Amino acid sequence: MKNLTLALAATIGFLHADPLPSWNKSDSKQSIISFVDKVTDAGSPDYVAPAHRIATFDNDGTLWSEQPMYFQAYYIFDRIKQLAPEHPEWKEKEPFASVLKGDLNSALAGGEKALLEMAMATHANITEDEFSKSVADWLATTKHPKTGIAYTDMVFQPMLELINYLRLNDFKVFIVSGGGIDFVRVFSESAYGIPPERVIGSSIKAKFEIRDGKPVVIKTPEIDLIDDKVGKPVGIHRYIGSRPIFAAGNSDGDYQMLQYTSAGEGPRFGLIVHHTDADREFAYDRDSHVGQLNKALDDSKTQNWTIVDMKKDWKIIYPEYIESTPSQ
Amino acid sequence: MKNLTLALAATIGFLHADPLPSWNKSDSKQSIISFVDKVTDAGSPDYVAPAHRIATFDNDGTLWSEQPMYFQAYYIFDRIKQLAPEHPEWKEKEPFASVLKGDLNSALAGGEKALLEMAMATHANITEDEFSKSVADWLATTKHPKTGIAYTDMVFQPMLELINYLRLNDFKVFIVSGGGIDFVRVFSESAYGIPPERVIGSSIKAKFEIRDGKPVVIKTPEIDLIDDKVGKPVGIHRYIGSRPIFAAGNSDGDYQMLQYTSAGEGPRFGLIVHHTDADREFAYDRDSHVGQLNKALDDSKTQNWTIVDMKKDWKIIYPEYIESTPSQ
Ligand SMILES: [Ca+2]
Ligand SMILES: [Ca+2]
Repeated sequence: MKNLTLALAATIGFLHADPLPSWNKSDSKQSIISFVDKVTDAGSPDYVAPAHRIATFDNDGTLWSEQPMYFQAYYIFDRIKQLAPEHPEWKEKEPFASVLKGDLNSALAGGEKALLEMAMATHANITEDEFSKSVADWLATTKHPKTGIAYTDMVFQPMLELINYLRLNDFKVFIVSGGGIDFVRVFSESAYGIPPERVIGSSIKAKFEIRDGKPVVIKTPEIDLIDDKVGKPVGIHRYIGSRPIFAAGNSDGDYQMLQYTSAGEGPRFGLIVHHTDADREFAYDRDSHVGQLNKALDDSKTQNWTIVDMKKDWKIIYPEYIESTPSQ
Repeated sequence: MKNLTLALAATIGFLHADPLPSWNKSDSKQSIISFVDKVTDAGSPDYVAPAHRIATFDNDGTLWSEQPMYFQAYYIFDRIKQLAPEHPEWKEKEPFASVLKGDLNSALAGGEKALLEMAMATHANITEDEFSKSVADWLATTKHPKTGIAYTDMVFQPMLELINYLRLNDFKVFIVSGGGIDFVRVFSESAYGIPPERVIGSSIKAKFEIRDGKPVVIKTPEIDLIDDKVGKPVGIHRYIGSRPIFAAGNSDGDYQMLQYTSAGEGPRFGLIVHHTDADREFAYDRDSHVGQLNKALDDSKTQNWTIVDMKKDWKIIYPEYIESTPSQ
């Protein structure tokens, strides 16, 4: 009975059942719904045909957590340990040596460059299928060091509802991640309902060859696209071919995607997830090394971007079946 | 009454209405239908879940005609003439000078390299939107020099039916073209029902910048991907992320795509459109400069690829509303 009352209360002000039940009643929730209502109303001057209802979502920090380190970095570290027997030289070579000693801070002292070097060493020179299997196996068997739950359970329930709501309204929903495209594609469909071909991300090059008599695609250790900052509109152009009408991110890495989206003609929606909830998730913005949010926060008012305050706007963070699991 | 009789006749041998009415009853038609039946039958050992029902189609010569020259080459020539006033140096510079004199054979004497140079000069240094508008305007106002009909009306009705048939059976259908991705994306949805984000093609690089105060994506004159031959599996990896179960092409440029598709585990289908119909379309294969089909024809038996003989297998070539238009 209590649930029924809550459910009824949540629908006040809406003609239909609440499409975003894990969102508190707030300006940000209302602005999302108003936007979707107007672009799907054939009688509205703001109507947008389904073919042009393109929505793009950043992944790390927007659809799942990213603290204290990008989850893909944990994969890279574990993969380095796993591959170490084949690479005796890593014992003496930084940043690999630090990883093997378990000193992740030193391993990351070289910043993006060090992470990129480790990504290359662990993601390249194998077939696309071998890489996908390695990631799938890792995701199935590894827990987050702080929460003790699987990485793919650290997805944001309110954002899952938002993706689903947009899809039910004939939006084409894409991920546009600074993370590795082939990494995210492994879990995008099961975690978010977004199929692999709708994932855009950073990538390394690839080549076709016959290996052991079988035609395969091999990942090679050369940068193809850095799908971050100015790279995000470039990735969107490459993979989608047109400007989104809706974009969601959480950091300055999303600035240009939001800017590119908002500058199109007609109705546009820019959303920023602000990590304000140290108790239920993490709280960080201007000074964070991971997911720094500074300039996009400053410009959100003039750009008309909606700031989602996790602490105030979201009833729950992770899916409820996850929260009911005792933490380890 | 005659139409009804024909329609009834066409359904003989099938439980449902004929999904490929413009295909004559033939082994190639039957093999397509048998393949679709088995991969969509949940009780079959060959069943494939919808998420993995990936089908890829070459464009030039597979979905529309490509003789006597790739249609995009006509666009390039017309665009050179259009841009000539801004490029006085072209009057003296090959291959541009030959194009401006109307001597297309001389312009193409430099082969792929000359065509690429002209593509760069006409496709780069403009925004993605300006390029799309230029192509759309050209397609809307230009006729094929031999048939006198619009290029987008020179699409193969039997292939439209095949695409639709696969889509109705929950296949995800992609174009994988050696032609320019941004060129094909302009008409893919209206001509084939394939949305722009499901088009893979050759590409040049792009960059994000603020131009005249507006954030835009600019096409730049550097090769990104040559989506032909070994580039096709690489393009499929980049854009889709997994091996198709169905691929269709018409030339040796599709060899590796077919090979990559056929080498996967489980049921696979490779299809080659063989241009055998000089009366209704064009007849060419081993010796053609455009769409050469040689090695793929030789290996079709051992690779178990289905050769579609246009003359024998197809009742009509272009959509009927086109054939009923008097040629000019
Ligand atoms: Ca992020
Ligand atoms: Ca072709």
